[in-house]
Amino acid sequence: MRATAVAAADEAAGARPAGRRPRIGIVGAGQLARMTAQAALDLDVAVTVLARDDREPALAAGARPILGPPDSLAALRRLAALSDVVTFDHELVPSAHLAELEASGVRLAPSAAAKLMAQDKARQREALAARGLPVPEHRLVRSEAELDAFGAEHGWPVVAKAPRGGYDGRGVMVLDGPGAASPGDGDVLLVERHVAIACELAVLVARSADGSAAAYPVVETIQVDGMCRELLMPARIDPALASRASSLALDVAATIGATGILAVELFVEDGRLLVNELALRPHNSGHATIEACTTSQFANHVRAVLGWPLGVTGLVAPAAAMVNVVGPADPRAGLPAALAVPGAHVHLYGKAPRPGRKLGHVTALGPTHDEALAVARAAAAHLEEDR
Amino acid sequence: MRATAVAAADEAAGARPAGRRPRIGIVGAGQLARMTAQAALDLDVAVTVLARDDREPALAAGARPILGPPDSLAALRRLAALSDVVTFDHELVPSAHLAELEASGVRLAPSAAAKLMAQDKARQREALAARGLPVPEHRLVRSEAELDAFGAEHGWPVVAKAPRGGYDGRGVMVLDGPGAASPGDGDVLLVERHVAIACELAVLVARSADGSAAAYPVVETIQVDGMCRELLMPARIDPALASRASSLALDVAATIGATGILAVELFVEDGRLLVNELALRPHNSGHATIEACTTSQFANHVRAVLGWPLGVTGLVAPAAAMVNVVGPADPRAGLPAALAVPGAHVHLYGKAPRPGRKLGHVTALGPTHDEALAVARAAAAHLEEDR
Repeated sequence: MRATAVAAADEAAGARPAGRRPRIGIVGAGQLARMTAQAALDLDVAVTVLARDDREPALAAGARPILGPPDSLAALRRLAALSDVVTFDHELVPSAHLAELEASGVRLAPSAAAKLMAQDKARQREALAARGLPVPEHRLVRSEAELDAFGAEHGWPVVAKAPRGGYDGRGVMVLDGPGAASPGDGDVLLVERHVAIACELAVLVARSADGSAAAYPVVETIQVDGMCRELLMPARIDPALASRASSLALDVAATIGATGILAVELFVEDGRLLVNELALRPHNSGHATIEACTTSQFANHVRAVLGWPLGVTGLVAPAAAMVNVVGPADPRAGLPAALAVPGAHVHLYGKAPRPGRKLGHVTALGPTHDEALAVARAAAAHLEEDR
Repeated sequence: MRATAVAAADEAAGARPAGRRPRIGIVGAGQLARMTAQAALDLDVAVTVLARDDREPALAAGARPILGPPDSLAALRRLAALSDVVTFDHELVPSAHLAELEASGVRLAPSAAAKLMAQDKARQREALAARGLPVPEHRLVRSEAELDAFGAEHGWPVVAKAPRGGYDGRGVMVLDGPGAASPGDGDVLLVERHVAIACELAVLVARSADGSAAAYPVVETIQVDGMCRELLMPARIDPALASRASSLALDVAATIGATGILAVELFVEDGRLLVNELALRPHNSGHATIEACTTSQFANHVRAVLGWPLGVTGLVAPAAAMVNVVGPADPRAGLPAALAVPGAHVHLYGKAPRPGRKLGHVTALGPTHDEALAVARAAAAHLEEDR
């Protein structure tokens, strides 16, 4: 019935050739949805987005908007009615709504169960640990006493996280000793051993519902205040470690049953890999794939959620660097100067400038990491300059 | 006044951050406008297109439509009112309208005078010949007697062209001997010596209003029925000939005062270059630049018409091939099969399938021309397959 209604709406719109365009619905309309819509256009795939307002970045890319909040079941249903498959550009959807949509026959990619693994850090840790995949020592605590006991056992500082809702370092606290914090009444905190991070890596995996999967080259991320600011691709690490990181990410993808792009953020501690965070959607650590890889993360996300063959994930240059462009400055003021930097690939998201807000990114390819990074940094500096 | 009105409209739309997005207007809304809009989005540049109807390819890329025919001065004025600069995705605009727009203060890129060089083949031949640039021997004829005299002088066959309006081989006739054709009453034909073509090349030049210009690597085009079907980049020719082709294209760009992308199609005859056709807009022979070059023709078109610094035009791989996808078949039927060809970059235009219609293209990069061409051909074959 739904497919028929969509086909009828398609005909009524009068805008398409014979046959029907595949239709993806995206919960969220930020820069990830914007770049996904750009990739979808090349494959003549229609994109509808659930947007909070008509200024969101994806709308300028030709995505059709459904206006509404992502925690409204009614809005999600309106999105689903216009989509063959529904996917995501963020984690902020109530998991109960996702389960309800699936129960009523809506195809979600990733599934509600898989998406929960990015939304609920406690469940994620347990699911991965149960399969023997490496995660930091952790515990769910319900009181200050339990928290302090964990610290006494594993040593201070400990890291405390809201099990849900945090991203870009929000919802994460580092506690130096006993008595520093406690869960609110009836609340739960996920506490973890503070990892002595030598290096942070990320591995993107594209995975189809049929289980076929491809890992992108391992990237090295440089975080500032919990937000990814710079990225190098491939990571400057021992090839054996890179190979273990790829295998681990593919194992994680299979374990949680991911569909679409899965980003696996990893800590390296004493040469050992630990899973830090998961995101089941295109991810900031994959923006360089637009120019640096044969198939971008956005194109592979579209292919994977539609069940189409995945594209080649290999690098097209020896090295790539990506630098985020972060507010407060309006990057349009420095755009001509940034474009004068040879080899800089500038991507602006069309967002209103605000302090700390990701407004765009710059990617550069090069014969070495240093050369690529110098180009990306030079252009990004112009875009972040206050004029 | 115009800028103020546009800014006010921009505010009214409520869709933009502080400051104003640069705005490009494109006459035409086909695949060239579609891919230009995709490139413009990365630079947060707003695109409005003059479209014949709401099914045209550029609309799905987020371009704002003005509906109307390109020969309507009123429609052109509506487009101009929403644009800081007006550019083109075809040649089908009356030159008198362009002159009138310029006279009323509209910024055209390319200018009306430059655009005329692609629209009027007789003027183009004369302008280039006057600067000593190589063009085939030619003459404007008004009667059968004049035509036959040209044939007797230069040998048969001769090529007769409508001075205006032809493209993709339309409006071109090869005449084998006297009496085969004559201009209609009061009509004029451009007749040219039939060139013994060893090879057809194209050179794209990006040129800004300030005269800065960059040539793309020379490409080799393979025509079928007058339409470009396949393309190899860089052309498999002597480096000295490639260098002469680049210089010639840059000379042509300066001679006619091009702004934006200029495509110079060249014949090679006995190692000598002759200018065949010009297009002052992004061009089919430049589609491979999306993946094969650091900056695509579409991105450089946007930069050039806005007066921004041009991007690097060099290749990112040893070889690239592009194959057009031409109707009658609906390419969506073969899309999954095409995507299963490793390394194929598929671009569909969202057009209704019709025999002989360009519906998309496939690009592949490779270590050799043969490898790239095999990949692009394999994917294009799936897209052209009748299912």
